[in-house]
Amino acid sequence: MNKIILLTGFEPFNNEDINPSWEAVRVLGDWQEGDFTVVARQLPCAFGVASKLLHHIVEEVQPSVVIMVGQAGGRVDMSVERIAINVDDAPIQDNRKRQLVDVPVVAGGPAAYFSTLPIKAIVHQLREAGLPASVSQSAGTFVCNHVFYSLMHQAADWGTTMRAGLIHVPYLPQQAARHPGAPSMRLTDMIEGLRIAVRTVLAYDVDLREAGGVTH
Amino acid sequence: MNKIILLTGFEPFNNEDINPSWEAVRVLGDWQEGDFTVVARQLPCAFGVASKLLHHIVEEVQPSVVIMVGQAGGRVDMSVERIAINVDDAPIQDNRKRQLVDVPVVAGGPAAYFSTLPIKAIVHQLREAGLPASVSQSAGTFVCNHVFYSLMHQAADWGTTMRAGLIHVPYLPQQAARHPGAPSMRLTDMIEGLRIAVRTVLAYDVDLREAGGVTH
Amino acid sequence: MNKIILLTGFEPFNNEDINPSWEAVRVLGDWQEGDFTVVARQLPCAFGVASKLLHHIVEEVQPSVVIMVGQAGGRVDMSVERIAINVDDAPIQDNRKRQLVDVPVVAGGPAAYFSTLPIKAIVHQLREAGLPASVSQSAGTFVCNHVFYSLMHQAADWGTTMRAGLIHVPYLPQQAARHPGAPSMRLTDMIEGLRIAVRTVLAYDVDLREAGGVTH
Amino acid sequence: MNKIILLTGFEPFNNEDINPSWEAVRVLGDWQEGDFTVVARQLPCAFGVASKLLHHIVEEVQPSVVIMVGQAGGRVDMSVERIAINVDDAPIQDNRKRQLVDVPVVAGGPAAYFSTLPIKAIVHQLREAGLPASVSQSAGTFVCNHVFYSLMHQAADWGTTMRAGLIHVPYLPQQAARHPGAPSMRLTDMIEGLRIAVRTVLAYDVDLREAGGVTH
Repeated sequence: MNKIILLTGFEPFNNEDINPSWEAVRVLGDWQEGDFTVVARQLPCAFGVASKLLHHIVEEVQPSVVIMVGQAGGRVDMSVERIAINVDDAPIQDNRKRQLVDVPVVAGGPAAYFSTLPIKAIVHQLREAGLPASVSQSAGTFVCNHVFYSLMHQAADWGTTMRAGLIHVPYLPQQAARHPGAPSMRLTDMIEGLRIAVRTVLAYDVDLREAGGVTH
Repeated sequence: MNKIILLTGFEPFNNEDINPSWEAVRVLGDWQEGDFTVVARQLPCAFGVASKLLHHIVEEVQPSVVIMVGQAGGRVDMSVERIAINVDDAPIQDNRKRQLVDVPVVAGGPAAYFSTLPIKAIVHQLREAGLPASVSQSAGTFVCNHVFYSLMHQAADWGTTMRAGLIHVPYLPQQAARHPGAPSMRLTDMIEGLRIAVRTVLAYDVDLREAGGVTH
Repeated sequence: MNKIILLTGFEPFNNEDINPSWEAVRVLGDWQEGDFTVVARQLPCAFGVASKLLHHIVEEVQPSVVIMVGQAGGRVDMSVERIAINVDDAPIQDNRKRQLVDVPVVAGGPAAYFSTLPIKAIVHQLREAGLPASVSQSAGTFVCNHVFYSLMHQAADWGTTMRAGLIHVPYLPQQAARHPGAPSMRLTDMIEGLRIAVRTVLAYDVDLREAGGVTH
Repeated sequence: MNKIILLTGFEPFNNEDINPSWEAVRVLGDWQEGDFTVVARQLPCAFGVASKLLHHIVEEVQPSVVIMVGQAGGRVDMSVERIAINVDDAPIQDNRKRQLVDVPVVAGGPAAYFSTLPIKAIVHQLREAGLPASVSQSAGTFVCNHVFYSLMHQAADWGTTMRAGLIHVPYLPQQAARHPGAPSMRLTDMIEGLRIAVRTVLAYDVDLREAGGVTH
């Protein structure tokens, strides 16, 4: 039986009419290769609602790997998140008009969870393929981080072998065309990048050890 | 007889092994549409040599329009240059190992020439097509600006109706993959962008009047 | 008996001959106000060595509050760190020529600790005083984060009521004069900013709840 | 009889309640040293009005040197402008609610004028004094550039030996405190920087030849 790789993307938020994370993920739905099949699902950009839906999807789909994907307007590359932190601190309202400030994602939960994806290997393979990529030290404090933390906490509870993590993608060119000064990446490159990420997760049980940090 | 549109790109410089300006321009060589034909030529990244070669090409080809294209590693979009200034002030050596500092491009020439392309219309049409673009207030003080100024000066001497200008393009993704933190643009988008630029030049005898400046 | 406030700064690193964190902290040594006295100590910029020394200092000095201060060349303001994470991943060698990559600060320790300083109140008070400040979501993965994590872990072990956190400061103007493009802050402003930080910690047992997060 | 050095600063604009250019310049009014005296004047942030006033001031004061100073919110250092260009292209309204777009500063005037200040020497001396500084290739297309161009054009008409140029200064810390992410500089450093600029102009009849340009 095939391994299930769950990819999630988000609905548009913050006055955008498109979200590149979902545009890239949706294309990879039902992609099969070797012994895996990809399941693609969209999440709402809303605290609580998104994490609950993701938990249900994970229970239903039983994935071996979950790669959450989110839009990071203003970033230049595919940035592979290192860590999810236990705080919601939103600079803007979510799609349900809620702006949580300094609320834990999970009351009583630990301060953070590290990604269990091979983040250095993913960045390495993306760059090898000519795609701009980097390790990111913070997934922010909005819905992306919320969903990321929430799933890692659930996974820790279950004692599962499921591996999970979050990748942020830049604006699409068509979005950057409306945000002068913002960098962008082509959808086809994001899709190719996610294919590489999926294959890399399956190829690396242990991550590469390559410098990917920052002095501050 | 068809109008000739001359597009020029540069050879690689500054330790790169590829220059997106030439990669994009070369693809458009011999492109015909309506009443125009594109001629594509490569320029060396060297003070003096590049401008002399360009003058010869222009005399040979007799273009109605010249769009010089150059690499601007670190920029986020296709930036349409407003002005060429009469100074070489190089932060690095050119490909002939020359680093000119505070030398005029043309001794005794005027301080600057404005682009005679419809720069606002080009930016407008690029954005309409979903491609990130902006007006740039400075083409720098290296070989791109040198060639740009030199040609505009020659054109002023000739009293020609030829229109000319410079467009800077970002790194390609494969370059940005080796320059963490640098934005990039896909080659296919640059090529499409240059097609739009050519069509826009021919469609607009008078430029659009849309704000494209900056406070500083 | 007076409360002890421990301020630490670092020695210069990464080819600098000065470290603004220590320059600011040293000035505040022996500062007394109300019921507190400040003790100022310098830490080496070296993994392990710095954290061990800090533990000894804390045992000796028995502070109520520890504010670690570090240099963040390239940042624009006094950035109050939210969280310390359990990883050393150095992009450069420390002052002992060691470059740790993907090693936990404390083997078996939790993924992260939140600052126990009132970070929102500090940012609020700094801005009120006309000093640029922000909450930072990542203290990096170098020696600053190492020392920060290490102390928070120790504090958790002790079950102490000691509050602790890290503030990053920009380059001094004289450093930025050698790093064209880098922002800077005056030493006098950093010193005033640290005075405000100390007073704010003592004034706020519970932090303000004001948005200070980012979408990504 | 003493040489007159005219320094001008602007009134606040763009929703600010202070303009660092005027705050710095006003302090230097009546400063005497060696054989010069500084005259400090404020200009309105309004197209046309500002340049006309400046012409009157120059006729009245008969300065040997004019250093116009303007606010460049978002820049990191004292940036010494290389060139003024013959275009008004405002991204925002001026203080008289006018937003000029693609209008020449002087109809029929040349495309640009170079600063006649020793810009490389000023940057050199500022950095030597530990103050962040750089050459800027564009003064923008708003009121600062407008006034700069207008004065250089007037000076060319007169055939005067008066030297003139523009220096942009960053936000003050108190402004940056309201613009999170913006760099800043202390007023005292700007004042010291302007003193150095004045002395440098008088000390250098011929500019230093040091690289200060950019590739793009």
